[in-house]
Amino acid sequence: MARVPEAAVKRLPIYLRVLSDLAEEGAEVISSAELSRLTGLSSEQIRKDFVYFGVLGKRGVGYRIGHLCHRLRQLLGLEEEVRVALVGAGNLGTALARYNLMRQKEVRITAVFDRDWDKVGKKIEHLEILPMEDLERVIREQGIKMAIIAVPPSSAREVADALVEAGVKAILNFSPVKLDGRGKAYVKNIDLTMELEALAFYAGGREKG
Amino acid sequence: MARVPEAAVKRLPIYLRVLSDLAEEGAEVISSAELSRLTGLSSEQIRKDFVYFGVLGKRGVGYRIGHLCHRLRQLLGLEEEVRVALVGAGNLGTALARYNLMRQKEVRITAVFDRDWDKVGKKIEHLEILPMEDLERVIREQGIKMAIIAVPPSSAREVADALVEAGVKAILNFSPVKLDGRGKAYVKNIDLTMELEALAFYAGGREKG
Repeated sequence: MARVPEAAVKRLPIYLRVLSDLAEEGAEVISSAELSRLTGLSSEQIRKDFVYFGVLGKRGVGYRIGHLCHRLRQLLGLEEEVRVALVGAGNLGTALARYNLMRQKEVRITAVFDRDWDKVGKKIEHLEILPMEDLERVIREQGIKMAIIAVPPSSAREVADALVEAGVKAILNFSPVKLDGRGKAYVKNIDLTMELEALAFYAGGREKG
Repeated sequence: MARVPEAAVKRLPIYLRVLSDLAEEGAEVISSAELSRLTGLSSEQIRKDFVYFGVLGKRGVGYRIGHLCHRLRQLLGLEEEVRVALVGAGNLGTALARYNLMRQKEVRITAVFDRDWDKVGKKIEHLEILPMEDLERVIREQGIKMAIIAVPPSSAREVADALVEAGVKAILNFSPVKLDGRGKAYVKNIDLTMELEALAFYAGGREKG
């Protein structure tokens, strides 16, 4: 398989969402035009993405939905439960955990860590908050490859290093420090400050431009 | 000014961050090559973006940092304080508000609303949580054009409509419902479920592809 560009990877869950809904409704095939209407992406983009994913449509018929869903789930590694570690059980971490535990079955937070001993032992839903000292052992035992960082900026780098050391391959970082995986892990930084600044452009900034 | 593509808008805050740091250190000019090194974006991309922003560099000299910062802040509307309304004072809303109030000066949450009367009257930092009944009045009085939605999915659409009705032009939506601005506002949806699913690709999904 050709290397899938990051922008196309971001679209994988969008395709999967739309196609899973269609499959549940009993649909069997879909054209790229129809998929374009449902996702808001261009037909050309969709066809290009699917070539990356190794999926070919049939002219005049379209794509087989079941096959596509299977392939997307395979690419995303969702065929078995994906376990996620969360580091940081403050307001943001707690919100992320509750949100995930309520809504997501396939990609699931199964371990929560915090360095604050006042939090250790307490629970978020059914998950007991564990001390940082348990991080490496638990991640190895559970075979966890994904983690969410929701700690203050001062400890984010240290936490990321510990996660990568323990075998984590992909990190979603909510701390306002830009992290990289030092070549050993993929890191997606979600900088809420920058999201808000970019949004300001649409709130009227450009009108003064 | 030509219409600035959404992808370029997303890079505005990145440029601003790097250039503000340089300005603070006393730097006056920068080449696109150096800016490329600091942002991780290609020189070509940077030059293209700056043409959109109406900024031209001088061959062999580069860009004037002060001028660039001014232009970026102008485009983002950051020359005066940008006020933001937050709807939903649960864990996520509280985390977002604390985070914003601690770190961001120019784009600032100045009003928090919740429909839960047990929360109304309580405070997040110095901000008193207001009832939904006050939303339209307060937004108009403060001239708020930006809002963050952090409410459960069942009420997200209704909240978005109320915000747009009150004059909000840009919304950052954290509820797991895809919202649009009905042609009257720009909506950026941050779907944490999809972020995690896309991340799963990098955690090992693709290796099975």
